[in-house]
Amino acid sequence: MKKLRIAIVGGTGYAGAELVRLLTGHPNADIVAVTSGRAAGERLSAHCPWLSTDIALSSFDAEKIDADVVFFAQESGFAMENAATVISNGAKVIDLSADFRLRDPAQYSRYYHREHSLPLPNFSTVYGLPELTPHEDIVNADLIANPGCYPTATLLALKPLFDAGLVEGTPVIDAKSGVSGAGRSRSETPYLFAERSGSMSAYAATGHRHIPEIEQSLGIPIRFTPHLIPTPRGMQITAHLPIKGSLERDDISHCYHKSYTNHKFVNICANNPEMKQVTASNRCDIGFEIDAHTGYLVVISVIDNLVKGAAGQAIQNMNIMFGLEESIGLPIHGVWP
Amino acid sequence: MKKLRIAIVGGTGYAGAELVRLLTGHPNADIVAVTSGRAAGERLSAHCPWLSTDIALSSFDAEKIDADVVFFAQESGFAMENAATVISNGAKVIDLSADFRLRDPAQYSRYYHREHSLPLPNFSTVYGLPELTPHEDIVNADLIANPGCYPTATLLALKPLFDAGLVEGTPVIDAKSGVSGAGRSRSETPYLFAERSGSMSAYAATGHRHIPEIEQSLGIPIRFTPHLIPTPRGMQITAHLPIKGSLERDDISHCYHKSYTNHKFVNICANNPEMKQVTASNRCDIGFEIDAHTGYLVVISVIDNLVKGAAGQAIQNMNIMFGLEESIGLPIHGVWP
Amino acid sequence: MKKLRIAIVGGTGYAGAELVRLLTGHPNADIVAVTSGRAAGERLSAHCPWLSTDIALSSFDAEKIDADVVFFAQESGFAMENAATVISNGAKVIDLSADFRLRDPAQYSRYYHREHSLPLPNFSTVYGLPELTPHEDIVNADLIANPGCYPTATLLALKPLFDAGLVEGTPVIDAKSGVSGAGRSRSETPYLFAERSGSMSAYAATGHRHIPEIEQSLGIPIRFTPHLIPTPRGMQITAHLPIKGSLERDDISHCYHKSYTNHKFVNICANNPEMKQVTASNRCDIGFEIDAHTGYLVVISVIDNLVKGAAGQAIQNMNIMFGLEESIGLPIHGVWP
Amino acid sequence: MKKLRIAIVGGTGYAGAELVRLLTGHPNADIVAVTSGRAAGERLSAHCPWLSTDIALSSFDAEKIDADVVFFAQESGFAMENAATVISNGAKVIDLSADFRLRDPAQYSRYYHREHSLPLPNFSTVYGLPELTPHEDIVNADLIANPGCYPTATLLALKPLFDAGLVEGTPVIDAKSGVSGAGRSRSETPYLFAERSGSMSAYAATGHRHIPEIEQSLGIPIRFTPHLIPTPRGMQITAHLPIKGSLERDDISHCYHKSYTNHKFVNICANNPEMKQVTASNRCDIGFEIDAHTGYLVVISVIDNLVKGAAGQAIQNMNIMFGLEESIGLPIHGVWP
Repeated sequence: MKKLRIAIVGGTGYAGAELVRLLTGHPNADIVAVTSGRAAGERLSAHCPWLSTDIALSSFDAEKIDADVVFFAQESGFAMENAATVISNGAKVIDLSADFRLRDPAQYSRYYHREHSLPLPNFSTVYGLPELTPHEDIVNADLIANPGCYPTATLLALKPLFDAGLVEGTPVIDAKSGVSGAGRSRSETPYLFAERSGSMSAYAATGHRHIPEIEQSLGIPIRFTPHLIPTPRGMQITAHLPIKGSLERDDISHCYHKSYTNHKFVNICANNPEMKQVTASNRCDIGFEIDAHTGYLVVISVIDNLVKGAAGQAIQNMNIMFGLEESIGLPIHGVWP
Repeated sequence: MKKLRIAIVGGTGYAGAELVRLLTGHPNADIVAVTSGRAAGERLSAHCPWLSTDIALSSFDAEKIDADVVFFAQESGFAMENAATVISNGAKVIDLSADFRLRDPAQYSRYYHREHSLPLPNFSTVYGLPELTPHEDIVNADLIANPGCYPTATLLALKPLFDAGLVEGTPVIDAKSGVSGAGRSRSETPYLFAERSGSMSAYAATGHRHIPEIEQSLGIPIRFTPHLIPTPRGMQITAHLPIKGSLERDDISHCYHKSYTNHKFVNICANNPEMKQVTASNRCDIGFEIDAHTGYLVVISVIDNLVKGAAGQAIQNMNIMFGLEESIGLPIHGVWP
Repeated sequence: MKKLRIAIVGGTGYAGAELVRLLTGHPNADIVAVTSGRAAGERLSAHCPWLSTDIALSSFDAEKIDADVVFFAQESGFAMENAATVISNGAKVIDLSADFRLRDPAQYSRYYHREHSLPLPNFSTVYGLPELTPHEDIVNADLIANPGCYPTATLLALKPLFDAGLVEGTPVIDAKSGVSGAGRSRSETPYLFAERSGSMSAYAATGHRHIPEIEQSLGIPIRFTPHLIPTPRGMQITAHLPIKGSLERDDISHCYHKSYTNHKFVNICANNPEMKQVTASNRCDIGFEIDAHTGYLVVISVIDNLVKGAAGQAIQNMNIMFGLEESIGLPIHGVWP
Repeated sequence: MKKLRIAIVGGTGYAGAELVRLLTGHPNADIVAVTSGRAAGERLSAHCPWLSTDIALSSFDAEKIDADVVFFAQESGFAMENAATVISNGAKVIDLSADFRLRDPAQYSRYYHREHSLPLPNFSTVYGLPELTPHEDIVNADLIANPGCYPTATLLALKPLFDAGLVEGTPVIDAKSGVSGAGRSRSETPYLFAERSGSMSAYAATGHRHIPEIEQSLGIPIRFTPHLIPTPRGMQITAHLPIKGSLERDDISHCYHKSYTNHKFVNICANNPEMKQVTASNRCDIGFEIDAHTGYLVVISVIDNLVKGAAGQAIQNMNIMFGLEESIGLPIHGVWP
């Protein structure tokens, strides 16, 4: 097979650099362009010294970009403006921002404080969570909306339970994220090492922007509070789910195994997984316990926010879209310690 | 006033050493003995080089200990065996273990896997959470059961709301603790720096032993899962509380201020507090947000698990017990960064 | 004694906030003003939520400041402009910047890239390292130049050895600092938590600006490279010192004990001290080993860069200047873990 | 090419697990056995949940092990006892311990406190640092002594300079290591997260056991002190080297480039590299500055102690030994942040 010609828009941020890192080891990929708004003309490695590469950064020009796949690793708003042009010129787009994740433009406006342009005329977009989205929808799309990190970890853990009708009442989702989720350019005091080290805090304790993305899939309101944990990478969801009293461990196990038998990146654990066991891997590990005392199921899922929660999942979508084996080029083991 | 003569049983663990650190700066305290099971005869500073002191460690002998107050900074089981003897010899006991926290011996047996001896004959014990326990009860007690760290952070945040009847249904308490909560002698693989750094995990996702202590005070079952956070000290509680729909921010504020107006160590914050802002201080900072979307109140409280959650609160209890101003010798500011 | 009326210029930075934290517990101090360039009019606690205080921030006005002592916790350049006015109005100044540390204005210009104004006319300034500077000089000064953090840790470890003629040849000083040394407003990418966590690096591998301050005291050129360590606070110096072959451990011990017998904040350790054992304390702990294999003495000293390396030492200078016992209000124990 | 049949002795420690992680992605390798002293019969993933694998752990039996290559990831002493048997049965051995690194048995006894058995009779051993050892020696060896982590980072940085005669006098090597260097079973108090976090310390300030390994290659005595840094992985060497006064930056550059032009894992940087930029990669990045002020060259090199300093280098040696391209299966990019 001819190698896919890849362009990465926004290569010096955490997700963009992670795309470069993973795709340079991908046997079917050939990176033809990495763009940067601020550093065009300079070497990528000058900004990302962990990457051992000669790639020179270029400017983004939607009209001229020449690639089979274009990854947008940009802030929300960018894809809305540029996707149609890029697709018209013959490329598929995989967008890591929120622009095409929500079906309801009103929700987008409310949470992202920006009017949403009309849906892409003549082009098909799909929300691409590979373990939950039918693969033929991914194959046929012009643009894949790569899910957010919190929705990925939450939906992989909860969607099968909701689909099976096992949860009753409001799910309480207490989420924890490493600091890289804030991005590389959030150089404000609260993100400084001296402030973050040895601390943690809730943020957006109510009203976080990933709520509508999760609710769109689950179909009911969720109680959701995310926290910043003093670790550079990683994400853990602790979901407290009211359940029917008669459920037993095997019922939950059965439900998960039915959903994920053929999905090698989702791993149902005998014990509660911990955040670091999936660092730098594309896995989502899920554990659970029934709390008979209160009638709740506690589900814990962990991902690497930059891999399964961003760049890795984007590549998994690319693999599916182009008929490749979905795990090609993606690490299955975590890096530990 | 004559200085109180203090003995600390278990001086090389984290809570015991913290008692030494704080009490050497206390104007009304005179440390007359620090004991250690393993290191009697050696200098305390050889085991705790952060303490600049000439104190030599001694052996514990319940019959011979000669002090006004004896702090037990030992594992559960120790106080049951030794408290009566120490009290009989004329000392007050402040116990940092769980031995006398639970009123129901059956609960103690269930959660601590040990039969509880009968209540102390002829002696009075009190659960001493100074902002919630009547001070005259503390003054009149022979033994103070110093609360657990999770119960301290949880009850200070929740008890006023429950007493005022503002919460309806099961509270979901998602707790986060620094690693020192495991103690200094838990030298097992999961507590190694290399394993913990950059990670986090739930533990005792159901059935944690602090649950009955919290439920004894609140009077209803709680959903509770604690997590280990990669920080040496600190504790945060995120409580998701179903509330009556008509409640507003001012109702909650009013409830808290009524409870804590005269309590300088509880601080109701305009913003969500973060874990580190109370490091090395005896404060408990509390913030909250109403989530109208789902009908929940989100309450966040932070303490230093070794100060307000252990040694500091024990000293606060001592101050009250002996008629001193309750804040003497206790830091009010956090150490940052 | 009447309380000293204290003003702190620059109260929301790390050193300034540390002055507030320590001085609010100082029995002879009364903080009458805390200024801030950016946040005048706001509450200090809004910017420093770890401080439990009602202090409101004010603007700095050199002409109007009314205090017995004024601490300058500002960038270099500020003291040169404002010290004379403040002193003329009757206050003593303790300056935490580099403005008056170097005797040679040419050195100042070279390392701080700014012309140095003439020495303060009619006023006396002193470099105040309390264990090495004669206390009468501190008492008689109008302005105390509070030493830099690296010079404090280095000179306390090396000066007695040099004065005794024990070192031959170029000392190699390999220094390590926590990230707070960069200040609270250095919100650039390299200081972000996500970048710093799990990493370390040398910076200013040659030509660091604290070199002339150390050389001014030792009298010979030094090889000096500092490193940034992933910890918020703390500093360690590892000095590799070529020595005369016949020296033994006792010779070094004797030299140190002669110098520091009456100095409670300098502690000569039997073992190599580690960085955290002096966290939040005003101590400097020093350990050493002779490497007979190569003819070197290895000396290790640790301080808290914000206490003995900044705010604590400034208060120690204040105590001496005003005839107080030098350790009043200053913590001797470290906070651990 | 037929896949190499690989056995890993000691699969649940950090280096052993890293071998599994890297070799399961290696196109020419087939892991046929992973042994464990304590956990034989159990699943590897039960002990290393970051590895997504079905491998079951087996017992080690030198007589019965059946493989093309056997990696020993064991404490020193193990290889001496078992290598001859394994080689006699037809396998090549790559030993990650110190047993065959030192040519002088007296040095081994002095630093490892154990008599060294005679050299392996009839078998050839080689010290395998692929950028410095002739590849034909590696090809022809029966056993490769994989270098220590400190020697790897130090020799790659210093050997070309020494060979070119650019250094005069004693090199001062101030080394810094992440905590995983202590191994996974060092569950003693000083390695606990609560103790290590926020701290750092020198250890073996004189007399570290990697000194003779470095001196054997450089040919002169070295001043060497290692430090433990609060990061799980990573290693940095800061070498302070007295040089001839006339040397300029280009001379050093030229020397390095001549040595490493064809070695893709050694990277000479324009700026000082930092520890994390090579995390999880097999690279060694080297930077340097001339300090004309004192006549020293400061060289900084960084590696991942578990990859280039252990498992990665072992695989690089394997690749060379079996005629494969030396970089196969080895990551070139670092994982960041």
